[in-house]
Amino acid sequence: MARININYLNLKAGYLFPEISKRVRVFQKNNPKAKIIKLGIGDVTLPLPKQVVRAMKKAVQDMGTSKGFRGYGPEQGYLFLRELISKHDFGSRGVSIDPEEIFVSDGSKCDTGNITDIFGIQNRVAVTDPAYPVYVDTNIMDGRSLEYLPMVSDNNFEPPLPKKKADLIYICSPNNPTGIPATRAALKKWVKYAREHQSIIFFDAAYEGFIRNPAIPHSIFEIPGARQVAIEFRSFSKAAGFTGTRCAYTVVPKQLMGQGRGRQKISIHGLWMRRQTTKFNGVSYPIQAGAASIYSVKGRRETKKLTDYYMMNAKIIRKYMKALGLEVYGGTDAPYIWIRAPYNMSSWEFFDLLLSEAHVVGTPGSGFGPSGEGYLRLSAFGSRKDVENAMPRIKKVIG
Amino acid sequence: MARININYLNLKAGYLFPEISKRVRVFQKNNPKAKIIKLGIGDVTLPLPKQVVRAMKKAVQDMGTSKGFRGYGPEQGYLFLRELISKHDFGSRGVSIDPEEIFVSDGSKCDTGNITDIFGIQNRVAVTDPAYPVYVDTNIMDGRSLEYLPMVSDNNFEPPLPKKKADLIYICSPNNPTGIPATRAALKKWVKYAREHQSIIFFDAAYEGFIRNPAIPHSIFEIPGARQVAIEFRSFSKAAGFTGTRCAYTVVPKQLMGQGRGRQKISIHGLWMRRQTTKFNGVSYPIQAGAASIYSVKGRRETKKLTDYYMMNAKIIRKYMKALGLEVYGGTDAPYIWIRAPYNMSSWEFFDLLLSEAHVVGTPGSGFGPSGEGYLRLSAFGSRKDVENAMPRIKKVIG
Repeated sequence: MARININYLNLKAGYLFPEISKRVRVFQKNNPKAKIIKLGIGDVTLPLPKQVVRAMKKAVQDMGTSKGFRGYGPEQGYLFLRELISKHDFGSRGVSIDPEEIFVSDGSKCDTGNITDIFGIQNRVAVTDPAYPVYVDTNIMDGRSLEYLPMVSDNNFEPPLPKKKADLIYICSPNNPTGIPATRAALKKWVKYAREHQSIIFFDAAYEGFIRNPAIPHSIFEIPGARQVAIEFRSFSKAAGFTGTRCAYTVVPKQLMGQGRGRQKISIHGLWMRRQTTKFNGVSYPIQAGAASIYSVKGRRETKKLTDYYMMNAKIIRKYMKALGLEVYGGTDAPYIWIRAPYNMSSWEFFDLLLSEAHVVGTPGSGFGPSGEGYLRLSAFGSRKDVENAMPRIKKVIG
Repeated sequence: MARININYLNLKAGYLFPEISKRVRVFQKNNPKAKIIKLGIGDVTLPLPKQVVRAMKKAVQDMGTSKGFRGYGPEQGYLFLRELISKHDFGSRGVSIDPEEIFVSDGSKCDTGNITDIFGIQNRVAVTDPAYPVYVDTNIMDGRSLEYLPMVSDNNFEPPLPKKKADLIYICSPNNPTGIPATRAALKKWVKYAREHQSIIFFDAAYEGFIRNPAIPHSIFEIPGARQVAIEFRSFSKAAGFTGTRCAYTVVPKQLMGQGRGRQKISIHGLWMRRQTTKFNGVSYPIQAGAASIYSVKGRRETKKLTDYYMMNAKIIRKYMKALGLEVYGGTDAPYIWIRAPYNMSSWEFFDLLLSEAHVVGTPGSGFGPSGEGYLRLSAFGSRKDVENAMPRIKKVIG
């Protein structure tokens, strides 16, 4: 009989979000009149920018003509998009990234999930904790064990260096779920560690567009020496409203090397190119045209407006929660607010309390890893009205 | 130092199509006046159907409004699309496939490439030869060895059963690259083998839309007993012109089981769901809306017209090549024509001859595996004009 990949049997049965949906469904069924406000999942709610709609419609129209039709595109994405990314996301910050180092994809979930394909299973993996569940699950699927690097209030959410030498290190900044960005000093520390131990950092910058503090790096490649030790993941999902449109990219510097047989050094860029050209066929042309439009003057203005809207939500949530005397983190450079559950409640206890008494849905911190226990994530991606209605309800329960 | 997946070092250096591009580029550079006609790569050339353009534009427009905006969709695809697939691609042929057994994706290359994730590396793999290079390369990446099942004129392109018991078996029908579809009898033989050996068949039906002979099955699930032993891959790429638009789907029946620890049976459907929900975030909403439009009365008429156009090209190529006294296969139920190189030439010799003397680009059969040596694939995806201009040129060289 065909044998399954038995590593899958080591995964926890339920992914976080289906469990949340289930509890919400049950509550709604038993309380049909309750008007539930969802501040849980990290999905955006504002419509696509006008520039994106215009560009995508034009591209679709072109695809319907003999002259404008496009078949297979380059697996790593069209050059017109990669050049814009290189110029605006990196060049404008003094970082030199060649368009050939950019791989456009249909999502950071795919890229952060698939990246382990090109690495051996014997690598030691370290992951900051709490974390986006994909980092952990994909390594379990491959059969790697992980070291968690706890980020808690006791260490000001600055993860310690790994106890045992780590080969692959996941860092997400601004962080999901805590909403806290890594400082330049913290990133320097990580680049130094990676250079000393010849590790590779997987830097997830999906929330980069929400950074407001000018001292916070937007890219790991702003840190000198990072090109030899890091891969960076970026996404159009959150800042440009692309969660349902699907476009992201990954930067793999050409200098980045891994160990092959013996002491042989192998280009990680070449391996990722081979992986992507073999198992991926590029992003839809109209979607790439839409992504490119974000870099126009009007497009940038629109995405700034989108992120500003969500960051105002974050500000409102922060202010309210602080006024209630809660321990509140994040929300100044990321669309997530990380709240310590009061009265020593567990994450799920706090979740259930807010759901049943305030009819507000958060995300239990424990779903993001052991160090998330006792915390709850609130998302700023709701509508202003929902956020404003949710706050007094929470106050009534906690206050 | 981070260790790479050293299985990648066992891959052949050059993927087939880049090598072809290189030779064409060099020839064009040395012969700038030559008007090269490309009948090589399997990329479509006709524009998207009008129904698809209309549906995608509407969906993009909706995404730009508060009411019509859609964020994350279900990873396995929207139900509206899966219901249409279930009804039109299977129900209409008397095959019962539940929408929950359908997983919409951004391409069959991804699905046929990623499917090995959920299987153990100890499985024995058999692949019909010649074959789509992704089947072979992805198993090499995982570290599995393969048995080739040769399809050559001596066995009427009917692959033999594996010599050693195979756990996973790749079958592509209508076949890429030979253009020959598997008969019902042949598929029955494979289902019987798989049931007896508890193997799983990966059935790639990406070219199903080009079948014209009513006796040829469109789906492996038309064969009784296949639900317990097969996964089927389908694509909108070729029949609906989606190579640059990106949409496909995979059918995983709920009865399909694999072996876990000891004698434990594990649902393959559950594993694939876990893989997709962890490493994939669904297909763009406008793309799925476009794919759904293909199933309307007008949409079906348009895609039929598209495939008819290509099949007329195939007919012209077949007729011409036969008139030249060449051994010609395929092209009646698939957009590929498989030609034996004359004068005992190798695939690349024949390729180089046609390129240099006729300025026509084919695809060397040896690029698809050892049994492809001595053959050349011509694709019917060109324009009518190109096909009609290419034929007399080849005649001049061969005739």
